[in-house]
Amino acid sequence: MTTSAPVQAACSSATISKKLRLVTTGQFDWAESAIGEVSPEEVIIEIAGCGVCHTDIGFAYEGIPTRHPLPLVLGHEISGTVVIAGKEAKHWLGCSVIVPAVIPCGSCDACRSDRYTVCRKQFMPGNDVDGGFATHVRVPARGLCLVPEKLLQSLSLAMLSVVADAVTTPYEAIRRAKLECSDVAVFVGVGGIGGFGVQIAAALGAAVVAIDVDNDRLELVSKHGASLVLNARECADVKSAVRSFTKQSGRRGIGLKIFETSGTPGGQQTAFNLLDHGAHLAIIGYTAKKVEVRLSNLMAFDATARGNWGCPPAQYPNALALVVEGKVRIEPFVEMHGLDEAQEVLEAVHHHQLRRRAVLMPRSPR
Amino acid sequence: MTTSAPVQAACSSATISKKLRLVTTGQFDWAESAIGEVSPEEVIIEIAGCGVCHTDIGFAYEGIPTRHPLPLVLGHEISGTVVIAGKEAKHWLGCSVIVPAVIPCGSCDACRSDRYTVCRKQFMPGNDVDGGFATHVRVPARGLCLVPEKLLQSLSLAMLSVVADAVTTPYEAIRRAKLECSDVAVFVGVGGIGGFGVQIAAALGAAVVAIDVDNDRLELVSKHGASLVLNARECADVKSAVRSFTKQSGRRGIGLKIFETSGTPGGQQTAFNLLDHGAHLAIIGYTAKKVEVRLSNLMAFDATARGNWGCPPAQYPNALALVVEGKVRIEPFVEMHGLDEAQEVLEAVHHHQLRRRAVLMPRSPR
Repeated sequence: MTTSAPVQAACSSATISKKLRLVTTGQFDWAESAIGEVSPEEVIIEIAGCGVCHTDIGFAYEGIPTRHPLPLVLGHEISGTVVIAGKEAKHWLGCSVIVPAVIPCGSCDACRSDRYTVCRKQFMPGNDVDGGFATHVRVPARGLCLVPEKLLQSLSLAMLSVVADAVTTPYEAIRRAKLECSDVAVFVGVGGIGGFGVQIAAALGAAVVAIDVDNDRLELVSKHGASLVLNARECADVKSAVRSFTKQSGRRGIGLKIFETSGTPGGQQTAFNLLDHGAHLAIIGYTAKKVEVRLSNLMAFDATARGNWGCPPAQYPNALALVVEGKVRIEPFVEMHGLDEAQEVLEAVHHHQLRRRAVLMPRSPR
Repeated sequence: MTTSAPVQAACSSATISKKLRLVTTGQFDWAESAIGEVSPEEVIIEIAGCGVCHTDIGFAYEGIPTRHPLPLVLGHEISGTVVIAGKEAKHWLGCSVIVPAVIPCGSCDACRSDRYTVCRKQFMPGNDVDGGFATHVRVPARGLCLVPEKLLQSLSLAMLSVVADAVTTPYEAIRRAKLECSDVAVFVGVGGIGGFGVQIAAALGAAVVAIDVDNDRLELVSKHGASLVLNARECADVKSAVRSFTKQSGRRGIGLKIFETSGTPGGQQTAFNLLDHGAHLAIIGYTAKKVEVRLSNLMAFDATARGNWGCPPAQYPNALALVVEGKVRIEPFVEMHGLDEAQEVLEAVHHHQLRRRAVLMPRSPR
């Protein structure tokens, strides 16, 4: 068990942080620097793990610009231990934490209107400042999510990094969709984010349909909450299959709750085409590509399409509780790699060679 | 002032109703039949006016199928006087009323979940049964909206027909968008529906931008609530113009409230491209055509796109109140025609030759 005293002793502002920087599209370098001082409300986190997200791939290879100019350390899906804390954040010292992927400022018009995910002064590691593909990261203490120590008996802190985005973002989308046990939830794309979405929806009692083009992924989610799995390349009529399932399920919720978690144009088409009367379509995955849709179907079906930019920090403990309760399993959906393999892993994610969410660890699992 | 006694005396189940029927795409005929008997919860309305909606044009000329097979009398934007009432609806006799364009069943799962506009057993005149391009129409009494007699001193009952759809549908979209006086509202397309939308938004205190391709329409709404008007064909950068206006307006609402009221692919593109952080996009106009959009912008902007299929009857009195209070003017936005001109008027609407909402009247204005 980690305690604050030895950690503090082992780390100071002179401690050297090692980090992988994106220098220009497709080009990285390794850099080292002293951790430096923290302001009163900041902390330095010794990183346990940092998940690789498709947003990172967009920044790294697709020319999508980061808000902070390059060079920049990517990575926004971070877990770790607080090793240095500013004077207003001392109570965090030694704590195991998850860093929200997007940390709102807490005081702007949007934040005061409870629209935290719209905050324009938000802080996103790996986009606004150096992120988590490193040994250490400096973040504001506000919004940190405490990891219960007992959870670490069964799950590594590194693995829990995926809660920072891949678990909480579908969690927030599901919350906004007001998903209930009377609903049918359809996930289009059950890779990183969708695999967790399926589990969260099943935990809430919804009947879950998973759609993907990869049978291995479909097999995995069929063991973790999906009652019907459909391979979009093999199923001639996805809409009819979902409709039959809905009828048989006996669920009386108003309209399908559809979650687009593939972040592909094909997936978005499939998801949009599933709209029925009163449907809610959550756009969770990201692609810069456009899709051709009959937008008027939103009117004809009295339907809603809604996106969410991450998840408000206040919801993180609720999402984490599903992991603590064993309702959302992380282990089958992630694969762990050393930070030193970062470039190879990013390349592999870029080329869709990995089936699970990759997590980079500065140290071997302890 | 109409009273029930003489009306009853003038009308019986043997009274002949005259109606224009759509026989097949693009072809109409005139028919006559006795009004017939009513069931206990039905009423017969002597029609004062029936607005012509683009939905009718879709049914009449574009091959969009009505739910009831042809021949069918189109028209769902109806006002009139109750001249015959079933035994459970006797209290309506002689009343001036607006017939909701979509009347939900009131007892299905959707209705019991307060999702009236999703009701699958809904009753829509001119789609499920014969509608308002006629002298009389038979409808269920549930949901009828009573017109205060004092309003008829200043406005004809015929003109109020447009409340049944062109006023209430944007009203419901605005209600769902939670539009407030701190918001900027943008209407794309200020013909029939948009012209009323602009006025409703202004009545709520929002700063209103109107976008259209027709300068006459823009001039009209500039006198009725729009603070900024933009001709989409003449303005090189609509997005920047809206952004500057928002900044100058000092409104601190979170995200634009955008209302697509043109029902054209171009208008939908313009509206979707206006999405900003936290935006709400209401899809009110209808086109069967598809548009190419970057759906992921909903996620990147934490935005919502929402459609509404009409308006729940319970909201009609609230929308009508804005007319009673003089906050929504109808007269400048409609043009009145005799029912006998119906075919010419429908053709003219089909060919976009009219600038105002056309209302068909079986009788000359009384």
